[in-house]
Amino acid sequence: MSVLPKALEDLIEQLGKLSGVGPRTAERYALGILKRSSNDAIELAKALESLHSSIKTCPKTFALISNDQELSSLYTDPLRDKKVIAVIEDPLDIVSLEKTGQFKGTYHVLGGVISPLDGIGPEQLHLHSLVKRISEDAVEELILALNASVEGESTALYLQKLIEEAELTVKITRLARGLPVGIDLEYADQITLKHALEGRTQL
Amino acid sequence: MSVLPKALEDLIEQLGKLSGVGPRTAERYALGILKRSSNDAIELAKALESLHSSIKTCPKTFALISNDQELSSLYTDPLRDKKVIAVIEDPLDIVSLEKTGQFKGTYHVLGGVISPLDGIGPEQLHLHSLVKRISEDAVEELILALNASVEGESTALYLQKLIEEAELTVKITRLARGLPVGIDLEYADQITLKHALEGRTQL
Repeated sequence: MSVLPKALEDLIEQLGKLSGVGPRTAERYALGILKRSSNDAIELAKALESLHSSIKTCPKTFALISNDQELSSLYTDPLRDKKVIAVIEDPLDIVSLEKTGQFKGTYHVLGGVISPLDGIGPEQLHLHSLVKRISEDAVEELILALNASVEGESTALYLQKLIEEAELTVKITRLARGLPVGIDLEYADQITLKHALEGRTQL
Repeated sequence: MSVLPKALEDLIEQLGKLSGVGPRTAERYALGILKRSSNDAIELAKALESLHSSIKTCPKTFALISNDQELSSLYTDPLRDKKVIAVIEDPLDIVSLEKTGQFKGTYHVLGGVISPLDGIGPEQLHLHSLVKRISEDAVEELILALNASVEGESTALYLQKLIEEAELTVKITRLARGLPVGIDLEYADQITLKHALEGRTQL
């Protein structure tokens, strides 16, 4: 004899498949949805149903775009500088960079970083299409906006090698490493502090 | 110009309505759903759509039951002792208590606790129906399985008063307060330790 109604148990099971959601969190979400109006549940259901069929990947930048678009509007926009490409891991990184309002170039989503432990090799990432873009769009600068991890570093090195092999000349930069705003010096970890010292700037 | 496709932004907005889910978590969930197969999204959508229409509240115990049931099966089951009622705040508390395998009585879901700050008064809780059940089912013991909070305490006091006014005799107990298993004495808070001292048992 089950303790909860089957419909609720089904929902808990499905919610438990969300990344990082355990059984207790799934229970809490499900009860929260049940407590709110059925309209909200239907709205969420509709958003889920149309998700996969209305989204595709931009064949140029590999950003997520609507099914009725051909290319990412951040790429086709004439105001965006196609000669500067920010190389990112994940489509959501575009949101973070766009929020700064400081970047006027275009994006290239790698779809991850090289990580042998997770079974991700260079061939699964959009690296060759990036090299192709460099010559096609006469790109002048690649900004590597990857996470500051071992995997991010090795992906950067691999990409550098690919560009050298293709005999292309492009300036490769990466995001500055240093103290984040609002963090006390005494709480900063040693590696961050080492980067902050190395990258010190003159006032 | 929006940075993400509309279908994804819609889903992020809807997921952000889940209790305790902020915009960043909603983004992570949405991207996770997009990365998995569309089947999983459809399954979740189906579970959401049928949720409200296939669940109702048991008119006797206020537990959640399927629409095709008349009363909670934990109440109608002849093996459950109707003379013992565990009084709980939330339908999910039934799951926790059932997992112990120790309780063979029935349940009564209050639907919350008295909390003037949140605008929850005694009239919004299933208190009077509980008093009615005491005489109808000749209940011998009420186990107050409420959270150890000020609100839980005042709800317990209010319920005690209601039962006295109705001139009913029923044994009222509450869950033991003390040290949880696996917690070091030195990390226990003072109030828990005070309860543990007061409720000490002889070996």
